[in-house]
Amino acid sequence: MAVWSERLAGVRGVLLDISGVLLDCGAGGGVPIPGSVEAVARLKQSQLKVRFCTNESQRSRGKLVGLLQQLGFDISEAEVTSPAPAACQILKERGLRPHLLIHDEIHSEFDKIDTSNPNCVVIADAADAFSYKNMNKAFQVLMELENPVLISLGKGRYYKETSGLMLDVGAYVKALEYACGIEAEVVGKPSPEFFKSALEVMGVEAHQAIMIGDDIVGDVGGAQRCGMRALLVRTGKFRPSDEHHPEVKADGYVDNLAEAVDLLLQHLDK
Amino acid sequence: MAVWSERLAGVRGVLLDISGVLLDCGAGGGVPIPGSVEAVARLKQSQLKVRFCTNESQRSRGKLVGLLQQLGFDISEAEVTSPAPAACQILKERGLRPHLLIHDEIHSEFDKIDTSNPNCVVIADAADAFSYKNMNKAFQVLMELENPVLISLGKGRYYKETSGLMLDVGAYVKALEYACGIEAEVVGKPSPEFFKSALEVMGVEAHQAIMIGDDIVGDVGGAQRCGMRALLVRTGKFRPSDEHHPEVKADGYVDNLAEAVDLLLQHLDK
Repeated sequence: MAVWSERLAGVRGVLLDISGVLLDCGAGGGVPIPGSVEAVARLKQSQLKVRFCTNESQRSRGKLVGLLQQLGFDISEAEVTSPAPAACQILKERGLRPHLLIHDEIHSEFDKIDTSNPNCVVIADAADAFSYKNMNKAFQVLMELENPVLISLGKGRYYKETSGLMLDVGAYVKALEYACGIEAEVVGKPSPEFFKSALEVMGVEAHQAIMIGDDIVGDVGGAQRCGMRALLVRTGKFRPSDEHHPEVKADGYVDNLAEAVDLLLQHLDK
Repeated sequence: MAVWSERLAGVRGVLLDISGVLLDCGAGGGVPIPGSVEAVARLKQSQLKVRFCTNESQRSRGKLVGLLQQLGFDISEAEVTSPAPAACQILKERGLRPHLLIHDEIHSEFDKIDTSNPNCVVIADAADAFSYKNMNKAFQVLMELENPVLISLGKGRYYKETSGLMLDVGAYVKALEYACGIEAEVVGKPSPEFFKSALEVMGVEAHQAIMIGDDIVGDVGGAQRCGMRALLVRTGKFRPSDEHHPEVKADGYVDNLAEAVDLLLQHLDK
């Protein structure tokens, strides 16, 4: 592998995943990953542009940012790209009225969306709301549509809470795809549109940007397919086998966000 | 398509799916599909060998047969091939100790199986027991195993109850497969071993046997891959689009079991 100075040459913008990179979520809200509060602060004091890019769909963007601020992170709502607002835009543009299979906490993000007489299903990380009854209802809505449309907020396999690994929305998307014989449209990572919208707000080209995440497929693979570079942190849902993933190879593997920021600042274009 | 006499020539044994062919299950137990009670009786009075081949995993074989007898069907437990006993045999042969994600009603089928310190997961149609908590527990068990083994009793996409279409175990299998990056071992239709074990008990070769089911993939496609013929009934979970399935073409489409039996008896080898 090339030396870090080559691998990080020309980076002007950094996209940060949130869960598993900044904090580990859990029952009480979450705990910061050691060194991450300071790492974000140092990044934001540098000449690098910074944006947060998350698939979080258990909390509204407002609640998530509130939690992060409480934990000491320098972050504002306007700096976060998250899937619910992107999904709302798609629903409006295409005249779609969703049946919502989502967590109670993010219902507020869909306040202005018409959900009468649904002609699609929107699925997000609903956690305990992924009951058989709720899954079956979403399935029945889809089976009654002539052209079933399933919109998924992310397609993560699992995430890490302080208590352990937890099934993410992607597993439940696969269940509905199989049962209905359809393919979901993903809003959020690893969708290229989602990464591109984050880059646009930053005003940085893909080849000048680097993603830092804990998901080898969704974060690293997704960003690389958009022409960005990507680092995998050994925190959050990271498992040692991720460093030998059969299809995705990160541009670098680092112990945590703090180490990633050390390297980035050390090799900044002067 | 060839005339029926050609399509049914040489049939000596009939495999019957149960749910959606004999009855529609529902809250109170189930209701017979019109004409099916008589159709089974006529088949059994003929020279054809008959066996029931089901993926039912919400009820024990004993309970299912009890329900069918109550509804007037001529059926005994010994005539039924169902996946739970087949799964138990595999568990014993391979020294596997399962974590069970199954319906309360079939726990009795696993009475003699050691479930301490699990080294695999067995999943069946658990219906309301497919809670997020239970799914997550099965996921965590699999993720902690060095060589995760997931054994699925069937992989149906959905089935029909009197109240409507219901998600079947296959959807939840796909969820765990995706989350864990593994592939389940299926016990039950459409597994060739399962069909073959039913044929063996009947003492009939595959080319002399015909399957009658309401699942174009699991019943019809599965049986055909074993060298059997297969008829699709337009009852149970049948949907008109099944007659134009992109990959599976039945040897015949009939309105219900009664019509299938009419045809079979009409074209019996004299």
